[in-house]
Amino acid sequence: MKIGEYKTIEERSRFLEKKLSISLTNVRKATVDEDEVVHCENRIGSISIPLGVAGPLSIKGETVKGEYFIPLATTEGALVASVNRGAKACFEKGVITSVERVGVTRGPVLKVDSLIHAKKTEKWIWENRAVLSREAETTSHHIKLVDVEVKIVGLYLFIRFYFDSDRAMGMNMATIASQHLIEIIEKKTKARIISVAGNYDVDKKPAWLNSIKGRGFVVRAETIISKKNVELILKTTVEKIYEIWKAKCLIGSALSGSMGFNAHHANIVAAFFAATGQDLAHVVGGSVGMTILDTLPDGSLYMGVYLPDIMVGTIGGGTGLKTQCEARSILKTDSPLTLAELLGAGVLAGELSLLASLSEGTLARAHKALGR
Amino acid sequence: MKIGEYKTIEERSRFLEKKLSISLTNVRKATVDEDEVVHCENRIGSISIPLGVAGPLSIKGETVKGEYFIPLATTEGALVASVNRGAKACFEKGVITSVERVGVTRGPVLKVDSLIHAKKTEKWIWENRAVLSREAETTSHHIKLVDVEVKIVGLYLFIRFYFDSDRAMGMNMATIASQHLIEIIEKKTKARIISVAGNYDVDKKPAWLNSIKGRGFVVRAETIISKKNVELILKTTVEKIYEIWKAKCLIGSALSGSMGFNAHHANIVAAFFAATGQDLAHVVGGSVGMTILDTLPDGSLYMGVYLPDIMVGTIGGGTGLKTQCEARSILKTDSPLTLAELLGAGVLAGELSLLASLSEGTLARAHKALGR
Amino acid sequence: MKIGEYKTIEERSRFLEKKLSISLTNVRKATVDEDEVVHCENRIGSISIPLGVAGPLSIKGETVKGEYFIPLATTEGALVASVNRGAKACFEKGVITSVERVGVTRGPVLKVDSLIHAKKTEKWIWENRAVLSREAETTSHHIKLVDVEVKIVGLYLFIRFYFDSDRAMGMNMATIASQHLIEIIEKKTKARIISVAGNYDVDKKPAWLNSIKGRGFVVRAETIISKKNVELILKTTVEKIYEIWKAKCLIGSALSGSMGFNAHHANIVAAFFAATGQDLAHVVGGSVGMTILDTLPDGSLYMGVYLPDIMVGTIGGGTGLKTQCEARSILKTDSPLTLAELLGAGVLAGELSLLASLSEGTLARAHKALGR
Amino acid sequence: MKIGEYKTIEERSRFLEKKLSISLTNVRKATVDEDEVVHCENRIGSISIPLGVAGPLSIKGETVKGEYFIPLATTEGALVASVNRGAKACFEKGVITSVERVGVTRGPVLKVDSLIHAKKTEKWIWENRAVLSREAETTSHHIKLVDVEVKIVGLYLFIRFYFDSDRAMGMNMATIASQHLIEIIEKKTKARIISVAGNYDVDKKPAWLNSIKGRGFVVRAETIISKKNVELILKTTVEKIYEIWKAKCLIGSALSGSMGFNAHHANIVAAFFAATGQDLAHVVGGSVGMTILDTLPDGSLYMGVYLPDIMVGTIGGGTGLKTQCEARSILKTDSPLTLAELLGAGVLAGELSLLASLSEGTLARAHKALGR
Repeated sequence: MKIGEYKTIEERSRFLEKKLSISLTNVRKATVDEDEVVHCENRIGSISIPLGVAGPLSIKGETVKGEYFIPLATTEGALVASVNRGAKACFEKGVITSVERVGVTRGPVLKVDSLIHAKKTEKWIWENRAVLSREAETTSHHIKLVDVEVKIVGLYLFIRFYFDSDRAMGMNMATIASQHLIEIIEKKTKARIISVAGNYDVDKKPAWLNSIKGRGFVVRAETIISKKNVELILKTTVEKIYEIWKAKCLIGSALSGSMGFNAHHANIVAAFFAATGQDLAHVVGGSVGMTILDTLPDGSLYMGVYLPDIMVGTIGGGTGLKTQCEARSILKTDSPLTLAELLGAGVLAGELSLLASLSEGTLARAHKALGR
Repeated sequence: MKIGEYKTIEERSRFLEKKLSISLTNVRKATVDEDEVVHCENRIGSISIPLGVAGPLSIKGETVKGEYFIPLATTEGALVASVNRGAKACFEKGVITSVERVGVTRGPVLKVDSLIHAKKTEKWIWENRAVLSREAETTSHHIKLVDVEVKIVGLYLFIRFYFDSDRAMGMNMATIASQHLIEIIEKKTKARIISVAGNYDVDKKPAWLNSIKGRGFVVRAETIISKKNVELILKTTVEKIYEIWKAKCLIGSALSGSMGFNAHHANIVAAFFAATGQDLAHVVGGSVGMTILDTLPDGSLYMGVYLPDIMVGTIGGGTGLKTQCEARSILKTDSPLTLAELLGAGVLAGELSLLASLSEGTLARAHKALGR
Repeated sequence: MKIGEYKTIEERSRFLEKKLSISLTNVRKATVDEDEVVHCENRIGSISIPLGVAGPLSIKGETVKGEYFIPLATTEGALVASVNRGAKACFEKGVITSVERVGVTRGPVLKVDSLIHAKKTEKWIWENRAVLSREAETTSHHIKLVDVEVKIVGLYLFIRFYFDSDRAMGMNMATIASQHLIEIIEKKTKARIISVAGNYDVDKKPAWLNSIKGRGFVVRAETIISKKNVELILKTTVEKIYEIWKAKCLIGSALSGSMGFNAHHANIVAAFFAATGQDLAHVVGGSVGMTILDTLPDGSLYMGVYLPDIMVGTIGGGTGLKTQCEARSILKTDSPLTLAELLGAGVLAGELSLLASLSEGTLARAHKALGR
Repeated sequence: MKIGEYKTIEERSRFLEKKLSISLTNVRKATVDEDEVVHCENRIGSISIPLGVAGPLSIKGETVKGEYFIPLATTEGALVASVNRGAKACFEKGVITSVERVGVTRGPVLKVDSLIHAKKTEKWIWENRAVLSREAETTSHHIKLVDVEVKIVGLYLFIRFYFDSDRAMGMNMATIASQHLIEIIEKKTKARIISVAGNYDVDKKPAWLNSIKGRGFVVRAETIISKKNVELILKTTVEKIYEIWKAKCLIGSALSGSMGFNAHHANIVAAFFAATGQDLAHVVGGSVGMTILDTLPDGSLYMGVYLPDIMVGTIGGGTGLKTQCEARSILKTDSPLTLAELLGAGVLAGELSLLASLSEGTLARAHKALGR
């Protein structure tokens, strides 16, 4: 009998235990959803990831105002402590955030007969945007087509649909809507569908297209830390943090051909995504942001973060799992816009703390040297 | 009283429940490690992620041979089923894998007085590689310096140390070793340490440097699927899969300025990393690989995947957590090399299945059209 | 006396000859413009670059129809012959071209006080586009502001102005207009000008921003070559050309982290730019295009080229020099749109010929082997 | 009669004049080489580009020491004047340069039967490097194989050969040598040649591979400008130049997905290449460098430039043309290493001047504002 023929977590995990002579006791124990989550096939249980909170962070954004704890599920030592320290250093002035819904994108590719056919198809799409919008809405009450772009190369016509997917991250409903739209386009223009997803999305791959045009939500967060707090809380100096930032986040990233001009955005994004039930492969999009520092005339430190490719939702996927729901309840929100802003603030705190740590490192060492 | 002042998961989660008027029952319930994992500060419990298995996959690699189930922890619907179907299609010929340990890298940045000073420092490092190797080994029994590269721009000297970190993913021990080495370099050359981590690593950011030179483990996997199995198991044709691959993974990615020339490597990497306790921020490195298809003279389909930036370990970090240990026990290995090869095979299966699905999509639709 | 104090080409070249004990006879002889071109300071004469023509190419585009010789100034052996051969192979079906004026861009950067200030400034710019358009037109009769985009990171506000610069390549007039516009923006919004050119243009540097959004003119060209002509004229087969293209222009470029998915666009662009008096530093933008091949059901070969970043003009800069004017007269046009389309056709011919040569290489060798 | 059937420049240009009713008088006049340059087919004459000199620049490098005029052939207004001003500002401290010959690269691609075949082929190449070195030298007295790298993806094996081509830029001899080497490899390993040039070179396309590993010559140049000279000669302040540099060359380039972290390297490279007879398509490689500024404790400004992909020669191609020979004679060198260092110094001067101009712009305007 094959594993796929068993019906329950219990049966499947027992089958594997026997077959492989292993124990899956804790994998079963960590399973808190009574019913199987239908979408994880051959499910044998659950893995359990430690959940901590950082904060409180004082945040004022477009959809958010107040003090927040940031839930972070992580196995990386000191990550929560680090964000926590950053939050403390930001507390005096608070964090200002902004968020813009660019929309979930899906990028089909079609094939045409010639450049002229491609141009006609592009024109048809452009002239029938209203039709496509209406049609997109027939596929779900929660989806709206907000923009469409076309790029022609050779006999390929790449489309980039942007959808407002309401509270959902929306990749699935965007795929369904896109499939419907390209079938219409195919029928009307005779351009032939190659694939509903042609990497002009770009989904789960780092891409300049997403960095430049944005995807999901574009988030910004900023704060100012007084010279005093840099020294008292972060145990370093404005000059040192600034020098490290310039060398690392700008010059080091440039030299390396990196798309991420930051210290460790991905760490906070990954822990926040794991905590709140987001798709973990979307951590990729969370890694391509930028961190910007500045020294202000009064000697204080300015820090801003820019996250152009944040795919989050508060419904669908892993967001409905019990522990993830509870973790999100710490943030007191059902809005993905708010979720994105809170993430931005958390990333800011994490960046601040790591850059400070790196400069502390040298400071600590210098102290040791002086102490000898 | 602040959250940080409480001592236990129980106390902290109760504090938050009261403060925010929420319930964290399941977060506590999902917590299977009796002792707190020391490195997750302000811990309030755990989140639980469904764990399934795909396979069996028939694999023959440099460190591995046999049939394997691949553990995948995911909240994305149909991911396990998809990899499963890919595994089935690969089963006849099996998957061939290879792995190369490039080593965990750490990229410090130092500052010099002049180009001449930089050149002298570079020369000193080059001439003292043996010294640095010995010194690196004094920081841990498990670390070896295997290579070092230097890049000079302006007054900055970027170093890229490559370490063999044994069974550990090794980022922490690489940092400790690097700190020790740059202190020696600073002392001997008067180049001043700016930061032990200067984004010339490149850690948790997508970067061409890592793609080109490799980081962690470089993994390859390949298989051949007969024309018959493409049609029977994958319900599509060799031509259709090939055309989608070319349009999507090559042209679409090129047009988008992407670093990932694949369909969805990140999905399988994320689920495998979550299952086996890897650092989830390293999903970023798992997204930059390449998938290559070819049509063979006998009409069968060749598929290969190339993963140049895989950071995994079997000790340290989240790998020691109970559920993650159990999930890894399914793979019957303590070797990160084997882990990497098994991941490569899983990614291959996932790529095959998604590309087939995309072409099925069009096929299904065409059938519908013809049926009308 | 310093070189800058001399008044004529004759005096300055004599001064250098004496000072360095060299001869500049030919540099003087190659000087065909009687008056000094005012903008080349310390001018001592001219250099002379061989000019050839390839063709005739049969072209049908949006602004062009007929048979054309393509002027190419080059020191690279066989380049003209290569384009010539490509032109011959394209002749039967002719080349279809298209062109789109995206506009010359200039990308100033300003500094703001806060994210809120940045957002207000962005809003002001958006709401005052009509005002900015009118103001731009006051700086020249030949310029129109056609689009403006804003990107905020940290305390920086980057603007990307798109201008229609009529017959001129337009970088200078775009700079003057941009300076005027940002002075207005500064006055109205209190955002402080940092630089009129902030690399969000992006001028003379390869950049995904330009590839994705286009700059100057976006050009496409395509043709179909019958199986017979591939064999007779190009001495190879459709399959061989296709295989080389896939391996080189797609996979090789992807592996290398290249922005150019082509064989040698830059060669034809450089020779055409030198011939027609374009800015040679803009060859950079001509290198980032894509070449796409396909095999058609009837066994013929489809080839298309995509050039997203072509900066050309027919007035201003070097276009007014005597030899460059004469070279352009071969193309019978004063329109930069036409110039761009003709360049596209030339690039297509060059790509076709080089890819064929590369496959001939193997063919030739195979023949040798078989002949032994 | 077709143009290709005529034998002389005179005949061909007369033919075109008549056919198109145009005049090519100056194109003939600008032709200073009595004999035809054999490699420009269908030659009808020459185009003439103004040649100026900037300097003197005071330079001290690895192969160079003294004061130099830099020849620049350009049609861009003010470029020579700009480099000239930069040279003046650098004069006090002089420019320090360094150069490293990485070698001209050629990147063939071969096809294998399987991953195992690929690995065996890679091993054979590695073990037979000495054989390949000897064989390479049989193809020319001027070529040496200095390194070889292999990258395997799917059934493709990409090779990157590095050659020392003596005084020549060397692309042609590298191609001939590479063809010979891959024929040996094919014979010994049964890997089949697809193309001698597979874009793993990477030739005339911007690529991270070249930036990261270098190609041709890697050049660095640096200088220090005193606070006083910044103000007197450059009419700006250290702070202003620094702020513009950071916003433009680092943040602006990062935001734009650019490979060039500089102000306008390509301008000086293009003019220097045109003057000295280099391949103008190689301007692309000259655009991907980095400019680094720093403010020093004594208030002076540090500037360094980094050019990782400079392809130059002093023999072959256009370097033997009369006017280009004369232009190079101004530099008093036959060494490509020296040529590369002098170019580096020129680029430095150009960067300094443009960044200063941009900040002057704001200064001028501010003065106007204050004057009102």
